[in-house]
Amino acid sequence: MDHLNEKTIQSTSIYKGRIIDLQIDEVELPNGKTSKREIVKHPGAVAIIPITKEGNIILVRQFRKALEKTIIEIPAGKLDEGEAPLMCAKRELAEETGYQSSELEFLLSFYTSPGFADEIIHLYVASGLSEGTTNRDEDEFLDVMEVTLEEAEAMVGDQQIHDAKTAYAIQYLRMKEWTKNQD
Amino acid sequence: MDHLNEKTIQSTSIYKGRIIDLQIDEVELPNGKTSKREIVKHPGAVAIIPITKEGNIILVRQFRKALEKTIIEIPAGKLDEGEAPLMCAKRELAEETGYQSSELEFLLSFYTSPGFADEIIHLYVASGLSEGTTNRDEDEFLDVMEVTLEEAEAMVGDQQIHDAKTAYAIQYLRMKEWTKNQD
Repeated sequence: MDHLNEKTIQSTSIYKGRIIDLQIDEVELPNGKTSKREIVKHPGAVAIIPITKEGNIILVRQFRKALEKTIIEIPAGKLDEGEAPLMCAKRELAEETGYQSSELEFLLSFYTSPGFADEIIHLYVASGLSEGTTNRDEDEFLDVMEVTLEEAEAMVGDQQIHDAKTAYAIQYLRMKEWTKNQD
Repeated sequence: MDHLNEKTIQSTSIYKGRIIDLQIDEVELPNGKTSKREIVKHPGAVAIIPITKEGNIILVRQFRKALEKTIIEIPAGKLDEGEAPLMCAKRELAEETGYQSSELEFLLSFYTSPGFADEIIHLYVASGLSEGTTNRDEDEFLDVMEVTLEEAEAMVGDQQIHDAKTAYAIQYLRMKEWTKNQD
């Protein structure tokens, strides 16, 4: 066993919800003492960086109740039970933005809040876009926007965009742009 | 009112914990129907990108109970009540790694999981590092590592690093490196 591991003594379910569950684990620490860990269980999610043939990025503007405000993000959504991340990425892109993608490339996966949640986001780059129709969840309302990379960067600069996955996506596109120009 | 806003009909507290609280909000949707939102309240956090004078990055290896595994991250920690993010960044850097920084620069803030949590991370770049002594929380155990940018990038590639703030930090350092080389 790794010298940093924490052993579960008891796990108590506090809440089982539609999207998240909450449990409290009593743990034995590496030094033999005990502590409590508050843990949010989440099914995992995908996020998509949709790039048009002009090199623009498709974003969505959505009210986030947890923040009590509308924020701008790349399209994203949670995995349905048993759903493969690639299928989920295709579905969420189409549902939220109406776009179909002929080229959906896996980029990386990351945990969003490892201190208290197990949520993992699988990030994809979508190109070869063609327009279709949206098909949103019945409690989902959002605006679709198309912006240039420079506009997206300005939105990070003035805090219109302040979402981790979206900030990562925009930085990724800037790096891609630079690599291309160096070829 | 923005056409995407959701109005709170009723908010029910499910759990009040040491780090997070859970509440369920019944909301009125933009179309007049109702839905429920599961919301995790978090005090906010800081994360620090510590860069040595050789251009290496300081990382911490820590067991994360929510993931049931040890992962590698940049130093980070939650805000104490009423604590300014800059003070928190100084404190967490010293507590977790032992390093003091003579230059602590704010980079950006981002939400980590806007779909279900209000956690915001304020990200700082720390340079002018000098070694001191660590002073960890009594339930905090971690290893400190110093790696080159290339080693850090390889760790993202082979999924040893798969944490959003850390992936962002490494991409940021690569961009900084490129900008410097173009000067």
